[in-house]
This record gives sequence, structure tokens and C-alpha cells, in this order.
Amino acid sequence: MQQPTVISGDLVAESLDLFRQRAPLVHCMTNDVVQTFTANVLLALNASPAMVIDSEEAAQFSALADALLINVGTLTGERALAMRAAVDAANQAAKPWTLDPVAVGGLKLRSEFCQQLLTLHPAAIRGNASEIIALAQQAGSGRGVDSLHESGAALQAAQQLAQRSGAIVAVTGETDYVTDGDRLLAVNGGAKLMTRVVGTGCALSAVVAGFAALPGDRLLHVASACRVMACAGERATRQASGPGSFVAGFLDELWMLNAEALI
Amino acid sequence: MQQPTVISGDLVAESLDLFRQRAPLVHCMTNDVVQTFTANVLLALNASPAMVIDSEEAAQFSALADALLINVGTLTGERALAMRAAVDAANQAAKPWTLDPVAVGGLKLRSEFCQQLLTLHPAAIRGNASEIIALAQQAGSGRGVDSLHESGAALQAAQQLAQRSGAIVAVTGETDYVTDGDRLLAVNGGAKLMTRVVGTGCALSAVVAGFAALPGDRLLHVASACRVMACAGERATRQASGPGSFVAGFLDELWMLNAEALI
Amino acid sequence: MQQPTVISGDLVAESLDLFRQRAPLVHCMTNDVVQTFTANVLLALNASPAMVIDSEEAAQFSALADALLINVGTLTGERALAMRAAVDAANQAAKPWTLDPVAVGGLKLRSEFCQQLLTLHPAAIRGNASEIIALAQQAGSGRGVDSLHESGAALQAAQQLAQRSGAIVAVTGETDYVTDGDRLLAVNGGAKLMTRVVGTGCALSAVVAGFAALPGDRLLHVASACRVMACAGERATRQASGPGSFVAGFLDELWMLNAEALI
Repeated sequence: MQQPTVISGDLVAESLDLFRQRAPLVHCMTNDVVQTFTANVLLALNASPAMVIDSEEAAQFSALADALLINVGTLTGERALAMRAAVDAANQAAKPWTLDPVAVGGLKLRSEFCQQLLTLHPAAIRGNASEIIALAQQAGSGRGVDSLHESGAALQAAQQLAQRSGAIVAVTGETDYVTDGDRLLAVNGGAKLMTRVVGTGCALSAVVAGFAALPGDRLLHVASACRVMACAGERATRQASGPGSFVAGFLDELWMLNAEALI
Repeated sequence: MQQPTVISGDLVAESLDLFRQRAPLVHCMTNDVVQTFTANVLLALNASPAMVIDSEEAAQFSALADALLINVGTLTGERALAMRAAVDAANQAAKPWTLDPVAVGGLKLRSEFCQQLLTLHPAAIRGNASEIIALAQQAGSGRGVDSLHESGAALQAAQQLAQRSGAIVAVTGETDYVTDGDRLLAVNGGAKLMTRVVGTGCALSAVVAGFAALPGDRLLHVASACRVMACAGERATRQASGPGSFVAGFLDELWMLNAEALI
Repeated sequence: MQQPTVISGDLVAESLDLFRQRAPLVHCMTNDVVQTFTANVLLALNASPAMVIDSEEAAQFSALADALLINVGTLTGERALAMRAAVDAANQAAKPWTLDPVAVGGLKLRSEFCQQLLTLHPAAIRGNASEIIALAQQAGSGRGVDSLHESGAALQAAQQLAQRSGAIVAVTGETDYVTDGDRLLAVNGGAKLMTRVVGTGCALSAVVAGFAALPGDRLLHVASACRVMACAGERATRQASGPGSFVAGFLDELWMLNAEALI
């Protein structure tokens, strides 16, 4: 794998412009905890979120939507079936789908399901270092939803995972790394408060799902999604008194984010 | 149908006063994405929200509550059964229930279920133009949860639906229209940011459910519910930097809303 | 039972320090409405929330987590089975679990389930007066999720419940009372706006679950959890224009809360 290249603000700004113009309809099959925040993050970026969960409806809807997100945070057996139906429909309609393997590793149902999903051609995978390592090794090491590893420690796992699955893999942490198994981009920035509110990682995965549906270089678009969120996080932190004002400020910054801020 | 009459602020203020005095207990069977926001909107208006979802409990609770909301945004087969039980119990106890037919039309489960519900005497129906047209025509045309039509394009569909179901029908959009199949009220106002945060429409339906339980002219009360939300949206927009600060400001404005603001 | 002693700010500050150092991983099996807020409250206090709901995974996870919360607000038969599996696993691993018996009393499924749970050695129980009375009497009296009683009216019920179940019982209201069946602590403070946003009680139960896992005097820790939330509520109220700004301010205040504020 190449040495990491830091993504340039110009390219991020172009990618964000394209995202806002296209306003992708993102079908989010995500966990119970982050639904509202995920929807609001997508809306703040001019995308359209929609959550459809019945198995038959989810399959219908995935064929219509521009992108699909599968997040296994609050998986059940029934939800796994509906997600599988949606993934199959997305694949049949040639719509890209993104995997967020929340807390994969130790927990049985999600770990087996994620391994199954890896064979179904995800366009992108977004996780923290522990999740990416567990997914690549087919074994687990996280503590609940938190990572026990720095993102850099997962570079080899990310590369393997990208090569095995064909997906763009994003390992997020203090620095985010994004790879297609060959090229490697680094994304700096972000803010500590992003880890003290729920859903920033899960919402990023939904944004990644939308960016993965843009025409052009998918590696670049996925890295742009990471940088957009990190940049909004930095800017919101400056004016926040704590996590409550941070959440509101974060959505405001996503809404206002422009090339000047990104470059 | 008559020409639309714009509802007067005086009447809205009276209706809101009555709502706050009665503080209706609203049983919300709604989608996964908007539960918190829906509850907070009702609480800000001095109502009591409660979400009870088990089939047997939902039937018990609907008989006790003042009003019931059925929102099919994240319908499943199991939820449809529980909602049906709650609607039957509400009808038996002569408690009004309100339908929000989210994304009805193209998606099979919800479209069939909504047609079934139409025969069960809803007190009110609240949707965007695409949803109201789809529900009236028993056919669909929306793009996910967004409307492809202006609210004015759905006036005929709204009238038919009101006549067929006996419900007050509210079509919301840039202008909201509310009809009982004969009279027609128009509600102006609102704000663009209301469409860039999730749940304003769904929360409005919960507020409509509560207003539909007030004694007096239900057409007027439902239109008042629409105007209360639109007015809070306008006021919150003035001080918002984006959708994050808008959400907080919107709840604050609902809390503070008074006759002066409405007239 | 003894006369109530008001808990001292010094002890609360010590307890909070210990909580932040230990940063407990709290497995929350809670209702659909309060998931995000509950997670954000725990994160603001430096704890780690995790929501795992599949029956087998929940049992696996409860053995790993530091504490478990069971909140029956949106119970279903399937969720009850998963909760039961998690409680059994927590007990086997000697991890404390806390019960929030939302709206127990009139509603059949949750009332029977809560009575069953009482025999399974909860570490703590947190409810409003109506809920604690209903739980102790095995009969109901609330109006949905709201209490019809002042917290002081539930003192005898709280004592009986503590003696019968072995749990620390917290009855929250304008004054909170916390008892182990013998000793009785009173917690003053709080704010009216806490009752006009959804989830403050449910989130308190999650915080109680985390504090119940600290080493030392559990009665004191549970009362400290109540005081931490009440104090943040008071401070957030001073700067709030309404419930929207209150929610953001409340999380900020939890984040900033220190000994000076508590003493």
C-alpha cells in the first residue's frame, strides 16, 4: 500500500458541491439510537434520508434510492433478514451500499452477519480501528462501541478488507484513513467532542453512503465525506460549551460549510 | 368545495389556549426516527405524549388516552397489527385518531394498510401533497418521504379523501390546506428550515391528533395546529444559524407562543 | 424508616469524580423514545453507553458491561425475553442491573414483567411516585408516564419495595427520595423544564445504573446520581428560553459540572 496522502481541501469542496447538487436519497437501515441525528446530518447536507425497515418494503425502496446504509448497531434476527433483502435489491439495481459494522467482533449475531455481508460487494465500509481489525480478522477486540486501537494500527486490516471485499474502507479515529486496497488517503481534523455525543460515527457512515453514490473517484468521495464531518466538528467545537451546544452547532456548521472553510 | 379562507390568528390563539388547558394525553404510534422530537413538541405545548407499542397494551392505552396518532413511517407487519388493535380500541372508546400516511403510494405494506385504515373512521389525516394524492387515488407518486407536488395540486384529492373517510384532511406544504370535504381553510407561513430537519411533519401530525381531541369545530382546531407549528417555525428561523439551532429554537418558540405572536 | 437526610454536596462531588474516573460501560435496554438522549447524558458524564438488543447478544454483552439498565417504556413480548436474558447474564456475572418501571400499573405486559423482574435482585429501581406505589402494591394508578402522586406519598411503598427486592429505590419528583429500606436520603433541586422535555427520568435511570456499579455505599451513589441530574437541570434552566435550549444546556452543564457547583 502507498504512503498516505492527505486529501486536499479543494477536492473535498468539489466533492461536497457535487453531493449537494445531487442531493442523494439515502436509505438508512441503522440502529435505534442514532436515527434522528443521522437524518438531520443528511438533511443539513441537502441529502434526503429515508428509513424503511419492513423486509419487502426495504427491498422495494433500496432499488429506488440512490444509496443504502447498513448499520448493525441494534441488529436482531428479523432486521438482518430485512437488511439482506435490501442489500440484494440494491445490488440488483446497481445501487451502492455501505456497511457500518458497529461493535463487530465479540457479539455473535452481528459478527456472523457482517462476514456474510462482506461477500455481497459493499461499496464502502466505515468503522473504528477495533471494528476494522475484527472484521478483517474475523475476530473481535472492541469494548462495546468504543475502539481500543488507534486508527493507524488498522491500516493493514483496512487494506486486506478492501482487497477482499472490493469496498473502499474508511478507518476513523484521530486521523481517518481511507483506502481502496492500493491507494491510501489520510484525513486530519475532527474534535474530541465528536466522541462525547452519540452518533457522529454512525452519521458519518450515512454520509459516506451518500458520497459513495456520486460519479467519479469513489476513494476520493469517501475521504471527502470524512473531511466534511471532521471540519464541521472542528468549527462547532470552537463555539460549544459542551456536548449539547456542540450537537446543534455541528448541524449548523454542516449546513454552512463551504470551500473557504474546507481549504 | 369553497374557496380557501385564511384562518385568523384570533381563532388559532383560542384553540391553542384550549389545547394547553386540556393538555391532552396523546398516544403516539409513530416511526423510529421522530419519536424524541414528537414527544418534545407535544411537551413544549403542554400536552402529554406516550408511546406504547405492544399490541395488547396499545389497545388498553388507546382507550385511556385522549387521542391516538398512527404514523406508518417505519411500519412492519407486527406494528400494523398493534396499530390496528389501538385504532379499534380508540374507536370503541370514542377517542379520535389521526393518520400520517408517510410515503404512502409505492411501498406495498404501508399502502395496503393505509387503505384499510381509511375505512376505520380517522378523525384527521395529515400528509404532504404526494401522500394525499396517493392515498386518494390508491396509487403512489412520492420520492421517499418528500413530496413531488405543491400542496395546492392536492386540493381535489384532499376533498375526496375527506368525503370518503369522514376525516379532516390537512395537506401541508408551502401553504397548508385543511378541509372537511366542504369547507376549506388555508394556513400560511412556515419556514424552509422546517424541511431541513427531520420530523416537523410527523410532529405536526401528533399535534393535529391532540387538537382533534378538543371540543368544538375540528376543522378549525386542525388548521390551528398547522398554524401553531408554522408560526413557531417562522420565529425560530429568525434566530437560527442553521438546522441545529433551529431545532432548539423551534421548541423554545412553541413553548413561548402566545396570542400576540399568532395575531 | 429513618427521617430523610439531605445528601451533602461534598459526597455527591466525590461520587461524581469516581464515576468519571471509572467511566462505566452501561448496557441500556431502554425505550424507543429516549435512546439518543440517554446515550448523550451518559457520554456527557464520561460514561460509555451501549444499546444491544438481540436476545443472545444482549446476554453476551451484559456479562461484559459494568452495568445494565432495563426500562420497560416500549416493551414488547420479544423485548421482554431479551431483557430477561440480559438480566440473567448480568446476575451470573455479578454485574448490577437497574429497573425503570415506566408506566407500570395499568398496562398488563409491563406490569407482569416488572413483578417478575423484582424477584431477580435489581441493584436499583428508579421511578416516579405513581410507578413506585404501583410496583409495591402490584396495582396501578398513573396516567400514562406521568405521576399522579407527589414523591413523598410513595415513601412507604419505596421502603417496602426496597425490603422486598433488596434494591436501592429512588422515587423522583420535586424532591427525590432514595432508600435501602432502612436509611432514607432526600435530594432537593431540579427544575420544571426537566418535566417538559422527554427522557430526563429515563436518562436518570441510566445514570443510576452506572452509579450503582461504583464501589462503596450504593445508597449514597444512587442519591448522588439524582443530585447530579437535578443540579444540571437547575443550572441549565437559568440560561434556557424554553425546552429546546434547555436540552442543549442540560448536556453542557452535565459536562461542566464540578464540586463547586455541587457544594
